[in-house]
Order: sequence, then structure tokens, then C-alpha cells
Amino acid sequence: MKIEILNTGSELLLGRTLNTHGQWIGRELFELGLRVDRLVTVPDGEAIADGIREAVARCDVLLVTGGLGPTSDDITREAASAVLGIELIEDEAALRSLEAFFEKREREMAPENRRQAQVPVGADVLPNPNGTAPGIYIPPRLNGAANCAVFLLPGPPRELHPMFEAEVVPRLRSLGGIEEPGRILELKFTGIGESELHREIDAALEAIPGLEVGYCARPSEVDLRLIGSAEAVEAGRRLALGRLGDRCFSDAGESMEEVVVRGMRARGLKLALAESCTGGLIASRITDVPGASAVLTLGFVTYANEAKVSLLGVSEADLVAHGAVSEPVALQMAEGAIRASGADVAAAVTGIAGPDGGSAEKPVGTVFIAVATRGGSTRVERQLHLRSRTGFKQAVSQAALEMVRRVAQNSVL
Amino acid sequence: MKIEILNTGSELLLGRTLNTHGQWIGRELFELGLRVDRLVTVPDGEAIADGIREAVARCDVLLVTGGLGPTSDDITREAASAVLGIELIEDEAALRSLEAFFEKREREMAPENRRQAQVPVGADVLPNPNGTAPGIYIPPRLNGAANCAVFLLPGPPRELHPMFEAEVVPRLRSLGGIEEPGRILELKFTGIGESELHREIDAALEAIPGLEVGYCARPSEVDLRLIGSAEAVEAGRRLALGRLGDRCFSDAGESMEEVVVRGMRARGLKLALAESCTGGLIASRITDVPGASAVLTLGFVTYANEAKVSLLGVSEADLVAHGAVSEPVALQMAEGAIRASGADVAAAVTGIAGPDGGSAEKPVGTVFIAVATRGGSTRVERQLHLRSRTGFKQAVSQAALEMVRRVAQNSVL
Repeated sequence: MKIEILNTGSELLLGRTLNTHGQWIGRELFELGLRVDRLVTVPDGEAIADGIREAVARCDVLLVTGGLGPTSDDITREAASAVLGIELIEDEAALRSLEAFFEKREREMAPENRRQAQVPVGADVLPNPNGTAPGIYIPPRLNGAANCAVFLLPGPPRELHPMFEAEVVPRLRSLGGIEEPGRILELKFTGIGESELHREIDAALEAIPGLEVGYCARPSEVDLRLIGSAEAVEAGRRLALGRLGDRCFSDAGESMEEVVVRGMRARGLKLALAESCTGGLIASRITDVPGASAVLTLGFVTYANEAKVSLLGVSEADLVAHGAVSEPVALQMAEGAIRASGADVAAAVTGIAGPDGGSAEKPVGTVFIAVATRGGSTRVERQLHLRSRTGFKQAVSQAALEMVRRVAQNSVL
Repeated sequence: MKIEILNTGSELLLGRTLNTHGQWIGRELFELGLRVDRLVTVPDGEAIADGIREAVARCDVLLVTGGLGPTSDDITREAASAVLGIELIEDEAALRSLEAFFEKREREMAPENRRQAQVPVGADVLPNPNGTAPGIYIPPRLNGAANCAVFLLPGPPRELHPMFEAEVVPRLRSLGGIEEPGRILELKFTGIGESELHREIDAALEAIPGLEVGYCARPSEVDLRLIGSAEAVEAGRRLALGRLGDRCFSDAGESMEEVVVRGMRARGLKLALAESCTGGLIASRITDVPGASAVLTLGFVTYANEAKVSLLGVSEADLVAHGAVSEPVALQMAEGAIRASGADVAAAVTGIAGPDGGSAEKPVGTVFIAVATRGGSTRVERQLHLRSRTGFKQAVSQAALEMVRRVAQNSVL
């Protein structure tokens, strides 16, 4: 099955917006055992019709994103209708959904939005619970000579992603041509680089018959993907965990914050946080997980030294003697967070995110991470992460959550 | 001058790598007054030759990225040579550069690397100080019928970017056809939907001669793009700000957090935060901005009611009577944050991120946002954001930062 993606939007070609659709859709299709043959990005305007015309002549499935909004430059519906020779009519159900969308939000529907209920005759309307633009599916039988299934999908990722999973994937399955993907397992590692992981296990994994191995480096983690028969994948899993199990935080595709929340929740443990250089990112990652309120009691973002002293009981003398970015301060922040919150586990970070504030002894990127347990010991690690400011925050939050994960897993509270 | 980009690499279509070339090159070309007409991504293999063949028939300049490496799937050189009918020969200077590259790094050159010194007869070799793959420029005169200038460029951004600036830009200039770049202005709005923005100003903007207008909906913001002569853009700017200036938080492409940090820093104002449902996201966004430490004194993530009482002085009676998600609690959280921190401005949020916890009176998505000033008044707003959990956090953080921006801008502290 030949699949193409057509991304529309001048902002993608003017460099105003980073196009993430290729990566996201590519990954989703891969999970189904499908691959993208070509991705084309065109600006708003007549290039959209050209792009659709050329693609439907080449491929079996065309996924068009963007241009379904209410404004005058949103002309994907009209372009598809013209190229495929199918008239647009107002769809009553789509119109009612649009009206309900605005009603639920207590907003008035603009006359422009009514255009969004226009659908090629005979096409399926794909509901969009997250926005005003419904998607459209035009099955091959409607397209005459071009034997191509055409999906028109909204551009914003938070609208596209759920619609893709709920509406596009089942239709791709029913189009057939989807091979049995075998089993896919994703092991997530942290604290180890992609090349090191590769060196440690790749030769042994490649020796397992019928196992396809892939690596993907992400911020502060490396994903190892194993694809093949259930036996091959299980053999690969055992091999990888046998050699590097202590670096693996998930074999179920969970994010680090999901692993921490699920693990602490299962053990009835409460977490507190005292963040300096990560500025609330650790707390925000934890609270991205539904049910986080059962785990997180309290978070402090103590950028200023006075707050470290007054709220966490950090020693002023130590702040002067060792500086805010130091082992004793990290340690006292974590222990202070335990005292202030009554939590079972507390993590504290203090470091230099940059671009300014570094010194020869403590360059930009230096961080101290401490994890304390109630009535137990406190561990502190000094690390160096040479990244951009936001990259540094990401890396430190990952390292701190990994320490929390290990402490929570192993502690006998 | 019609320009196309052809990105090669299976990893881009399998979702293993995010393709940033479109954004980066698009922005660079725009600075020169040029636009990308189309961007095509193809996998490694014969699709590269197809991509080159189709593009050179359409455009005046083709920028091909990737596939210049030493491994067997790197075949861009060969594909271009075959399509354009120009023989490849080993270039002595390119070979010497390759050898010098490895010598400098005290590494041995692999036999595979020698292929990288192959160049179409008569083409320019573009030096690559950051990698092994030299770039190649094939001027239109070499291409016979296809009157297209073809650049073959390395895929890795840290090799591509310097080569683009040093080697591609001067050649584009000498090709001529570079028009006066015109001006681009991006106005960022929040608290207004794309369709409402469109309805309010589009007709009037479209009436300005020579002004190109574009809209882009992002999470909790809409960007309005104005392109044209300096006069046309300025007329558009005045019109948009005249009608909707109170909804515009930036006319300089800054993010909301950048605007808040820059504005508060310029006025010497300090900020404190008390976050419940956003779980640290507001603090994290603020601390993404370099120099945030001059503004943010203290942030609380008070998920638990006890923390709201003990740290922020929220009334237990009000928590019982009105619930944690209520106007008095939001108000007391903000005022408590001022007291605890000594900051000039404090924002507090308390709401129901979901998926659980909603009621008929306060459904999932309900939030109260309060902004207090030291010695001044406190404003509270009740809002409803029907989104996913992370979408809700994003929308609430944006609304809270917008309230902070307005208060900080207008307050006479």
C-alpha cells in the first residue's frame, strides 16, 4: 500500500512552524506495519490542488493535513473537491456538531465556521472533539479514475492525533494491505547514550533470528525497538534487560513520569519536590500524569536563596560557604522538602542552567540532585549536562525522576 | 525564482528523526526575500532520483539534503549524476580535504569515505568543515534542458547550516532574482479564537494593497502574519492593533513567557506563583526564559489542601465551604503567595484538569485564576478549558501568564 502525506500551510515553508506531522504519522503508520512513501509540503493556495492531483495519481492512500479551518486561506476542502470532481454540500450532522462545539464552550459560532460543515458528496465526516474542523474521508470508490483513498485532516497536532487514531487507523485496516506487524516492544533507557547502548547489545540482538532492531535517541533517553515474532522479541527483551536492565525504566512504552507516578501510587508513597534550576519542570511532568494528585503532595520552586532558607531550612552559612549550587544545599533542600510536606520521598535540584552564572569550578550545566526518604538516607549526585537552557532542564528533570524511581522502587518505607 | 527542497532519508519517513530542514531553510530564504515553493521528503533509494527528476522540471533552484555520507544507502550523488546526465569523477581537492579531515582528528579514513570525493564533472565542491561530506553545486549551464541550479547538501544540521550560509547564499545572490525581501511581522494574540480574529479584521486587512495575510492557530494563541512592503505591513499592524490590541501580547515573535519576563524585568517587578492544577507548568515556562531568576522569586505547587493552608494561609473553612476549586481559594492562594514571597505580583490557579474530579457545577476544565499585587487588589477569573489534561494545563498557564502580563503592564507599583 503506497502512502503519501501532503502537508499544507505557508507557515511550514516560511519557517514559522516546525512540521512535526511527518515524524508523528510516520511513527504511527510504522506501528501498523506501514511506511510513508513520500511527504510533500506545499503553501496555502493553488499548490494544494496541484499537490493532491499529483499524489492521487501515484499512491493508494493520501493523508492531507491542514487547511480545514474557517479562514479564507483554508481551501483544502475546495481543492480536493475540485481535483476529485466531487461536489461539496453542507452536511447536517457536521453542522450540528459544530454548533454543539461552540455551545458547549459558551461561544458564538462565527458565520465563517459554517464553511467547515461542507463535505464532498458521499464522503465520511470524521468527528473532531478537539476543534472546529471535522476531518473528511473520501473512499477510493468516489474518486473515479484515481483509485486512491483520501483523508483530509486538521493541522493542529492536538486535533490531528486523536482523529488519526480514532478515525484513520480503523479505515486503513479495513482498506486491507496491512500485514501482521508481529510484536513490537519498546524498551526505554536513560543514563546511557545511543552509541553506547548500540555497542553493548546490538551484535547480540542482531544474532537473534527474525528480530528487527531499531534505536531512537530522544531527549535524555534512548528507545530500543524490537520487532518480530513473539519469541524473537522475548529473546531480545531478555538479552537487553540481562545486560542493561538497570538502565531500563520502561518496557511498556511509558514515559518516565508515568513510571514514577504508577510505581509510587502502587506502593502508597507520597512525593515532594524542591526545584531550583528546573524551575517547576519536574512537578509539571509529574502532574501531566492523570492521578498525580495521589502522589505529589507539594512542590517548591525556590529560585531565590531566601526561599531556600525560609521554606526549606537550608543553612545560610552553607549557602555562603558552598554556594547555592552545592552538595550540602541540594541535600538540605531535599530533607527540608520532606519536613515541610511529610512526604515519603523528596527530590531536590540545584544547578546552573545558563547561559550565565557558570564558573571554572562549576561551569554552566553543573547540577546537584538529591533524593531523600522520610526517616532514611539522602543521596546526592553531581552531574554535568552541556545543553541549551531548556535541554538542561529536560535532562536534569529526567535524571531526578530516575533517581526517584530507583529510590521508590528499592526503599522499604 | 521557484525554489524546492528535497529531503532524503528513510529515517525522516519512519518517524525516527524530526525533519527541521524545512523550517530552518525556509526562514533563511525568507530573510533573502525568497520562498520555498515545495518541500518533498523521500526515503533512501530510487525515490531520490524520482524526486530530483520531478523537481528540476518544475523549479529554478533545487536544494537536496542528505544522502552524501559514506554508507551504501547514501546515493544522492549518483542519483543526481544519473538524472542530470553528468558523469562523476574523483575530485582531487575534495579527496585531500577528506584526508585532512581524518588526519586532524587522528582517525583513519575508511575506504568507503573515498566515494565522498566523487563530483559531477564541472560542478563546484562546497567545503564542509564540520563533517566528511562535501556539498556539491551544479550550475544550470551544466544541466542541459533542465534550467535548474542544483545544490547537494549534507543532512546533519550542524554541517548543513554553516555550508548554507557560506556557500549557498552567495550563489543564490549571484543567480539573481532576489527581490527586496519585504517585511514580515507576526502578531500574537491570546484569548481570541482564529475564526473570531478573522471575522474582526480579515476583510479590512485584505483591503490593504500589497499585504499578504496569514493565520496560524497554536495552543492558546493565534498568530497573525503580515507580509508585504514596509508601508503595507505597518498599515496592517496599525489596523490590527487598533481593533484588537488588547488581545495582542507580542508584535515581535516573542512567546508569552518571554514577554512576561522581559516586561517584569524592565520594570523591576518580582513574581510569585501558587499552582494547583497546572502543577508547576507556569513556573517552568517562566524559567525557560534566560534571566528568569531576576523575576521569579518563588513558586508553590500546592496540590494538597494541607499545603494550601499551611504555606499560603488559605482558610480551612473556605476550603470546606467552597471547595479547593473556588474563587475564594484562588484569591487567598494568590494573596498568600505575595505574603510568603514578598513579590510584587502573584498568580494562583486552582482547577480540575481531569480526567476525573468534575461535577455538574464544576465540570472538568473549570479553573479559577487569580492575580494579586502587593498592597493592591486581586482579580479572579473563572474560565472553562475543555481539553486533554496537558492541553488544559497549557491553556490555563497561558491565561494566567496573560493576566500577569496585563497586571504587570498596567500596575503602578
